[in-house]
Amino acid sequence: MTEKIKGIAASAGIAIAKTFILKNPDLTFERKTVDDKEAEKKKLDAALEVSKKELTAIKETAEKELGKDKAEVFAAHLMFLSDPEFVGAISNKINDESLSAEAALDDVSSFFIQTFESMKDNDYMKERAADVRDVSKRLLAHLLGVSFTSPASITEETVIIAEDLTPSDTAQLNRKYVKGFATDIGGRTSHSAIMSRSMEIPAVVGTKTVLEKATDGQFAIVDGLNGEVILDPSEEEIKEYRAKQAAFKEQQDEWKKLVNEPTKTKDNVHVVLGANIGNPGDVTGVVNNGGEAVGLYRTEFLYMGRDKLPTEDEQFEAYKEVLEKMEGKPVVIRTLDIGGDKKLKYLPLPAEMNPFLGFRAIRLCLERQDIFRTQLRALLRASVFGKLQIMFPMIATINELREAKKILFEEKDKLVAAGTQVSDDIEVGMMMEIPASAVLADRFAKEADFFSIGTNDLIQYTMAADRMNEHVSYLYQPLNPAILRLVSRVIDAAHKEGHWAGMCGEMAGDATAIPVLLALGLDEFSMSATSILPARTQLLKLSKEELAKHKEAILNLDTAEEVLDYVKTKMS
Amino acid sequence: MTEKIKGIAASAGIAIAKTFILKNPDLTFERKTVDDKEAEKKKLDAALEVSKKELTAIKETAEKELGKDKAEVFAAHLMFLSDPEFVGAISNKINDESLSAEAALDDVSSFFIQTFESMKDNDYMKERAADVRDVSKRLLAHLLGVSFTSPASITEETVIIAEDLTPSDTAQLNRKYVKGFATDIGGRTSHSAIMSRSMEIPAVVGTKTVLEKATDGQFAIVDGLNGEVILDPSEEEIKEYRAKQAAFKEQQDEWKKLVNEPTKTKDNVHVVLGANIGNPGDVTGVVNNGGEAVGLYRTEFLYMGRDKLPTEDEQFEAYKEVLEKMEGKPVVIRTLDIGGDKKLKYLPLPAEMNPFLGFRAIRLCLERQDIFRTQLRALLRASVFGKLQIMFPMIATINELREAKKILFEEKDKLVAAGTQVSDDIEVGMMMEIPASAVLADRFAKEADFFSIGTNDLIQYTMAADRMNEHVSYLYQPLNPAILRLVSRVIDAAHKEGHWAGMCGEMAGDATAIPVLLALGLDEFSMSATSILPARTQLLKLSKEELAKHKEAILNLDTAEEVLDYVKTKMS
Repeated sequence: MTEKIKGIAASAGIAIAKTFILKNPDLTFERKTVDDKEAEKKKLDAALEVSKKELTAIKETAEKELGKDKAEVFAAHLMFLSDPEFVGAISNKINDESLSAEAALDDVSSFFIQTFESMKDNDYMKERAADVRDVSKRLLAHLLGVSFTSPASITEETVIIAEDLTPSDTAQLNRKYVKGFATDIGGRTSHSAIMSRSMEIPAVVGTKTVLEKATDGQFAIVDGLNGEVILDPSEEEIKEYRAKQAAFKEQQDEWKKLVNEPTKTKDNVHVVLGANIGNPGDVTGVVNNGGEAVGLYRTEFLYMGRDKLPTEDEQFEAYKEVLEKMEGKPVVIRTLDIGGDKKLKYLPLPAEMNPFLGFRAIRLCLERQDIFRTQLRALLRASVFGKLQIMFPMIATINELREAKKILFEEKDKLVAAGTQVSDDIEVGMMMEIPASAVLADRFAKEADFFSIGTNDLIQYTMAADRMNEHVSYLYQPLNPAILRLVSRVIDAAHKEGHWAGMCGEMAGDATAIPVLLALGLDEFSMSATSILPARTQLLKLSKEELAKHKEAILNLDTAEEVLDYVKTKMS
Repeated sequence: MTEKIKGIAASAGIAIAKTFILKNPDLTFERKTVDDKEAEKKKLDAALEVSKKELTAIKETAEKELGKDKAEVFAAHLMFLSDPEFVGAISNKINDESLSAEAALDDVSSFFIQTFESMKDNDYMKERAADVRDVSKRLLAHLLGVSFTSPASITEETVIIAEDLTPSDTAQLNRKYVKGFATDIGGRTSHSAIMSRSMEIPAVVGTKTVLEKATDGQFAIVDGLNGEVILDPSEEEIKEYRAKQAAFKEQQDEWKKLVNEPTKTKDNVHVVLGANIGNPGDVTGVVNNGGEAVGLYRTEFLYMGRDKLPTEDEQFEAYKEVLEKMEGKPVVIRTLDIGGDKKLKYLPLPAEMNPFLGFRAIRLCLERQDIFRTQLRALLRASVFGKLQIMFPMIATINELREAKKILFEEKDKLVAAGTQVSDDIEVGMMMEIPASAVLADRFAKEADFFSIGTNDLIQYTMAADRMNEHVSYLYQPLNPAILRLVSRVIDAAHKEGHWAGMCGEMAGDATAIPVLLALGLDEFSMSATSILPARTQLLKLSKEELAKHKEAILNLDTAEEVLDYVKTKMS
């Protein structure tokens, strides 16, 4: 019987193959106390040893198959297995409570998982909880002598069906055989979803029921374009989806042709399509997808998942790598945006009632100048290896911009005085993500070299609605005329002073928003790398001059719904 | 030895008198278990009885001296002493743990206090913690047979020195003898500070050390104008402060002359000076201080400190009382603004990561239409008793405004159809406190009858800075040019459609901001009642036409500091 299951489209494309059900191993055990504590601790040590060996092997494979960045999660797992806070706590439980190693591990890992997960709405910490769960599962399996179904054992074309894919699962996926996957849990930003896009494997996540409904080895279609899984499709459906698959392949080929083309509109206006990245390793994807710039390098990832601040040299190497790989194309590097929902365990920050309105980003950097100056020196030293554009996040007042620039130039002068080479061609700009700055953009434009509009935050502050809060998510309206007016004001202000204005929020890659942004005069669109070629294809067919005629009309509409309707009927 | 101690100016005026030190009674006790649990429970019951009798007496005095609203806190105390959750928990502790009544009370009250206080930055819940502390202290004293130093025992002119004044302390203050007070803890919005303003007793709070440094019966000056306490002042200082006292008295008399005068500027422009109120009882203060309107009636206080929603009739009575007491002068009643930092115990709301960007005010009312419609009916029924203006809080989109108005008119039609009298002259307006609405004010002005700018929220959202968070409080800048541009835009948009624009945030009563707001064309200023006469005095000396010439210049400055400097040098 054919069965259709709805889920969340996580990675574009269509896969048609037999299912491979990746079940969680049975890790149930009886909780008990032991007499021989030393034997229990030896058992623990042995399981730790095997787990570490396995992880080292997986890490090496992942480095080869997925790149160094993607393999880093296993370094984190390995570190966790050597962390005295974790291992020591298990050992202590065995000692103090005469618990079996399994029970002790379970208590300790539950504590860590709960702690991480209690930081609700915090995607980064949720991922950390997933890591602990993943590594604890492995350790428990070895304590129990149970073996996993490993994705590495797949040797024919399949689509994987699972509750969720752990980082170690995805690291073992062989693209030759794994054509797609579908999971019960997860959203567009969950680990498995991000990995599927980065590996370009069609995927549907968050189906809730696929694991229960699927049987091993049946035929299935994973439609990553529409977020649907079809179990036991009819002949007709298979035919239909083969056609869709071919059409998508054709579209991809069409897109690929544009990899080395500049982005030109129908009326021959050049706009820059850049990519948002989090790690130097992401640049490969940017280049492969024809990115003309890195429009946003989120440097906070350099600071995360570690025990202490990255050194100036570590940062220098990372910035240099990105600049070099981009071969002279512009690279906008944003200084540290930590705080809010992004915490560092080695940099304790005060608990805040409203962290999104709190002590973060430039606010923190202007106070913790030691951290800020180290990063600026690393940036300045790297500047000679490409076209660097430094960007400050969360600027709310002109005084903050002046202060940040003053510190930057102080560090530059010191470096130059010490004989270090620094580029004389660094643009210094700012994020436009706070309503106050957007309203005062004309004044800011006299002191910043460029603006990049961070729509995620700008929308949430302008609408006074936390975008992570499902009760008010209906107010996250990129096309609300108030947002468009602020965007338009920022762009006009930049142009009046001869500067460029870009956008690095999710809105920049949205097919519905692109005609509007072009009409408002946006110069640079920065998005996830895989959106670049579709956006370029779309822009080829749009005339900036024609669209600009609608500018006044759009800005004088009442609601986001009216704008959407206007765009659909008159601007596409 | 003369000693000067700095604190926070909580209530204007100067008091010169002998000190009366109000010390906390010694309530230490030895924690112990008991054999005779029944005897312990009887002891508890007896102490409960005496405490209730005392509180009933205090409540009656307070009702006479301070008014019904201010006496309500004692009703809350009494309710607490009958609350099975509280009393039952103490009883259970005696039973289950064989604790003495004192120890059981201590455990239970500590639990309640900690629970309330853990809701950090939430002033309302902090006050609840203070209530529990207050009532538990009374109960403990009776258990121990210890008596308080009571402010009621004061029979000569004094200034009270205390760690803090509890609600029961303030209720016993006799204005004839208590000329002022100074406390170690508290801020401008703490209970004792609010009470001192309402009783017009000069007060300095948050001195940190006055209790330790003062000795009973020494001479002291409490300078509530500058936030300073002088212990053992010299003859010269006393002379100086007597002169200051006389000057302040003279100024007050000057102000009082304006009680029945309209507010006119030097160039004869009439602006409306209104007051913000939280309870019907506050109207007396508005009338005594010459308020020309209630610019903001915060109805959420009707919903707080109770066990269930107020009924339609209870609300009707409250709204009617305010409208009647204002005798036809305009009364802006804001519909329920709950959520964020204001919670109701009988209306559980989801925990939120950023409550200020969350599910509150109109967002909640549009979903909980049962609550909203009840309030609207009460308002509509009350409308015939005065000049009612209904205001919706936290409107972010035009759709929200349309939806709220639709529900209002539905209820109106139903009432009219049922034969209930409803005024045909109700203005329906909105708070301007979300950047999106201010940016789109010209569109909103086509559908709202008036705007009232809520600067507290507007500033915090526009600057993306939680005003309660000390780490970013430097960004709470009323005079930031971005804020002034939004204010100006809102005022212009209202005028273009023939409407009025007011302001009901703290900024409206600020002497530095008033010339700027007049220059921008603000029609109505709503502030705390005691600020009205000083503001009227100030406005008499200002020329709107002259100030308006500076409008463009101010709006094109870069920073709040520049605006402040401009106002001081060119507009005062």
